Amino acid sequence: MPDGFFSSYDVRVRFAETDAQGIAHHAAYVVWLEVARVAYLADHVGGYRSIQARGVEALTTDVHVAYDRAAAFDDVLTIHLRCVDIRGARFRYEYVIERAGEQVATGSTAHALVDRETRTPTRVPSWFADAVVTAESPA
Amino acid sequence: MPDGFFSSYDVRVRFAETDAQGIAHHAAYVVWLEVARVAYLADHVGGYRSIQARGVEALTTDVHVAYDRAAAFDDVLTIHLRCVDIRGARFRYEYVIERAGEQVATGSTAHALVDRETRTPTRVPSWFADAVVTAESPA
Amino acid sequence: MPDGFFSSYDVRVRFAETDAQGIAHHAAYVVWLEVARVAYLADHVGGYRSIQARGVEALTTDVHVAYDRAAAFDDVLTIHLRCVDIRGARFRYEYVIERAGEQVATGSTAHALVDRETRTPTRVPSWFADAVVTAESPA
Amino acid sequence: MPDGFFSSYDVRVRFAETDAQGIAHHAAYVVWLEVARVAYLADHVGGYRSIQARGVEALTTDVHVAYDRAAAFDDVLTIHLRCVDIRGARFRYEYVIERAGEQVATGSTAHALVDRETRTPTRVPSWFADAVVTAESPA
Repeated sequence: MPDGFFSSYDVRVRFAETDAQGIAHHAAYVVWLEVARVAYLADHVGGYRSIQARGVEALTTDVHVAYDRAAAFDDVLTIHLRCVDIRGARFRYEYVIERAGEQVATGSTAHALVDRETRTPTRVPSWFADAVVTAESPA
Repeated sequence: MPDGFFSSYDVRVRFAETDAQGIAHHAAYVVWLEVARVAYLADHVGGYRSIQARGVEALTTDVHVAYDRAAAFDDVLTIHLRCVDIRGARFRYEYVIERAGEQVATGSTAHALVDRETRTPTRVPSWFADAVVTAESPA
Repeated sequence: MPDGFFSSYDVRVRFAETDAQGIAHHAAYVVWLEVARVAYLADHVGGYRSIQARGVEALTTDVHVAYDRAAAFDDVLTIHLRCVDIRGARFRYEYVIERAGEQVATGSTAHALVDRETRTPTRVPSWFADAVVTAESPA
Repeated sequence: MPDGFFSSYDVRVRFAETDAQGIAHHAAYVVWLEVARVAYLADHVGGYRSIQARGVEALTTDVHVAYDRAAAFDDVLTIHLRCVDIRGARFRYEYVIERAGEQVATGSTAHALVDRETRTPTRVPSWFADAVVTAESPA
């Protein structure tokens, strides 16, 4: 586990995610980051659907991925992630993607909470912020 | 134009739609059929968004694609389609996909109209059926 | 497990696989069938990469999906599949997709083995056919 | 056209690219940037396939997208792009995505040329660099 990361989830590269260069297409990583966020929310914050049920929606406002090595079909990739920088309606995630301990990519995403009906920014609720603090604190 | 088809739309194979076999992934065709249906509805039935605005939604209930030849990155494919078999809440599309006049694939999709709110089946309205009859009649 | 099926694999609906109708997009199912085939090959036939290593490639020549119920974000779907009708260079898969024991969709795919270099049809090797017979025989 | 941009290409948001938030999924933008690059290469550098034919391949080493506004199904988005910072084997693209003149997103991608066989970095050839200089010079 990279230093400062306490959560990680695995994805296996699907054949549909490869491209004619014979490697995983770079857009697939953006989907994998989301898969990891959904799993993180399920484990630590009660699940994305329960967040929606509370009337808020998380928009993605920024995505960055830096690719270090190509990933191939059927590779098992471990996505380490942490939620950081909760401020007002906003928060970020940072990611390290590894394959068998070797760094494949790094990334970050930024998000804004909005009211599901009005689509206006909504301050990150304390139950969300508290859950993240717990998730990001070493045992 | 294949016999009995009066509408066609082009798609260009995206690099993201190829796979590690070096050809267009077979799931991409299902997306292209939808792109062609959306264009067909725009040209003949006032557009998909106007259909939604009238309170109905078209669900896809069946998809079939038969692949004759591989398609490659950057190929321009022509999707010929026709709307057939309007009955009650249901209707179908048939497709022939060609590249420079050579058949690449054929397909069909089935759909059911539902009320956007209740999700219950809704008889195909006459304005939809009439528009299809016009679209499918030779000039 | 549906009658006559001995293999099944789970997928969880990704947020990226949903569409503006609020349900899993119908093209995503085609990708999930492939995910199940890859897992089947890994469990029963030594893995897709080992098949490629033997110089053959499996093309998809036909896809059919019939949708019975919508699937939603985060649903866990179980894909039951069986390999059938091995003849010459060709074979088929049949699928039943369930959610908590309720049928969501059924499908089938057809495939042809080709030589990786020449792309010409290659008779299904006995090690492949034997492995399938074993996989499809009740214990 | 944003200041300093001389090339732009349109994409129409596909229904398959929307998600259950009712907007275009954020990973779709990464695919659209690639669609724009492919069109740029076709117009200015002889096409991506001709680049491959010369024995080089462009890898994507970094992707960044900042989302300003949501895009909806069937929106026509204009992707303005420019190729910048050609140095050694590396070059970058910068993007502004607009809808009817309103900024929807900005982005950048970084790329490295590699030899198709050896996968080792290959200096950007002069025919590529010269073509970019021409494309990026005001008429």
